[in-house]
Amino acid sequence: MDINAVNALPYEDFVNIFGNVVEKCPIITASVWSRRPFVSLPALEAAISEFIDSLPESEGILRCHPDLAGRDLQRGTLTLESREEQARAGLDSLNSAEASRMTRLNEEYKERFGFPFVICARMNDKANILRQLSERCQNERAVERARGIEEVKKICRLRLQGLVLTDAPNKL
Amino acid sequence: MDINAVNALPYEDFVNIFGNVVEKCPIITASVWSRRPFVSLPALEAAISEFIDSLPESEGILRCHPDLAGRDLQRGTLTLESREEQARAGLDSLNSAEASRMTRLNEEYKERFGFPFVICARMNDKANILRQLSERCQNERAVERARGIEEVKKICRLRLQGLVLTDAPNKL
Repeated sequence: MDINAVNALPYEDFVNIFGNVVEKCPIITASVWSRRPFVSLPALEAAISEFIDSLPESEGILRCHPDLAGRDLQRGTLTLESREEQARAGLDSLNSAEASRMTRLNEEYKERFGFPFVICARMNDKANILRQLSERCQNERAVERARGIEEVKKICRLRLQGLVLTDAPNKL
Repeated sequence: MDINAVNALPYEDFVNIFGNVVEKCPIITASVWSRRPFVSLPALEAAISEFIDSLPESEGILRCHPDLAGRDLQRGTLTLESREEQARAGLDSLNSAEASRMTRLNEEYKERFGFPFVICARMNDKANILRQLSERCQNERAVERARGIEEVKKICRLRLQGLVLTDAPNKL
């Protein structure tokens, strides 16, 4: 799909295709549709990023994200995108010590900050994720809020690229 | 559930319970959780309304709404809340002339405005909805954008009341 094809999509198709580039936030994609035409994929990504930065509150986006290796993964209720990303990082095959540690640290993180630990799983493996989760539990809330949003944007970029570039790596 | 119980909810439970008071926009509920404690149900509703009004773009919310008597109803892919509301208004039992008219007017409306017709189905029956859809197709875009958001807030109020007041009509 090249950018002209993206720009030609009616809002319903646009939201169906890109609605989960920010996890469970189709409102973001549905809003930036107003800003088409986009000159390139990075321009679409930039519009999403600007929308995120101009939200009246930024922790809400983080709270729409599932725990890593958490209840949604166990119950099979993750979004398709999250399921693939968590599996690729090895989070669906933790041994019992790793699983216990992940659960304990996720709870500690949520208790401390009031939002879940968000990290771009596709850019990390399970050992790295566990290490960063442990380290980031020690940060200040404002630091973690900003860091979580940075990770949301990385996830968004990879999801967008996955949707647009699959069959046309040089077009955008 | 009284307001103290609402205020005591961890964000995950809060989003699970109230995440769809604005259709497919759990980010809104997830954001206003930061503003608890709420002194009353109307205070929670007001926080949601303020969040909506301070979004950088308002048409995105409308684009998260399904067509009335549209494809999602036919395919069974409506959210639980929308399904109940559309059924209560009689939209799941249109005769073929009504169904054709609804489809035609929905398409006309979307073509004209770039977002779907949104109306609080629980406050209207199918005849009234068809009449208003036909009339509102004639409005200016800015008028319809504002009107749609007003309707979103009515839907939100009734969904909130349904969730909180079911077993305690006088508590809030």
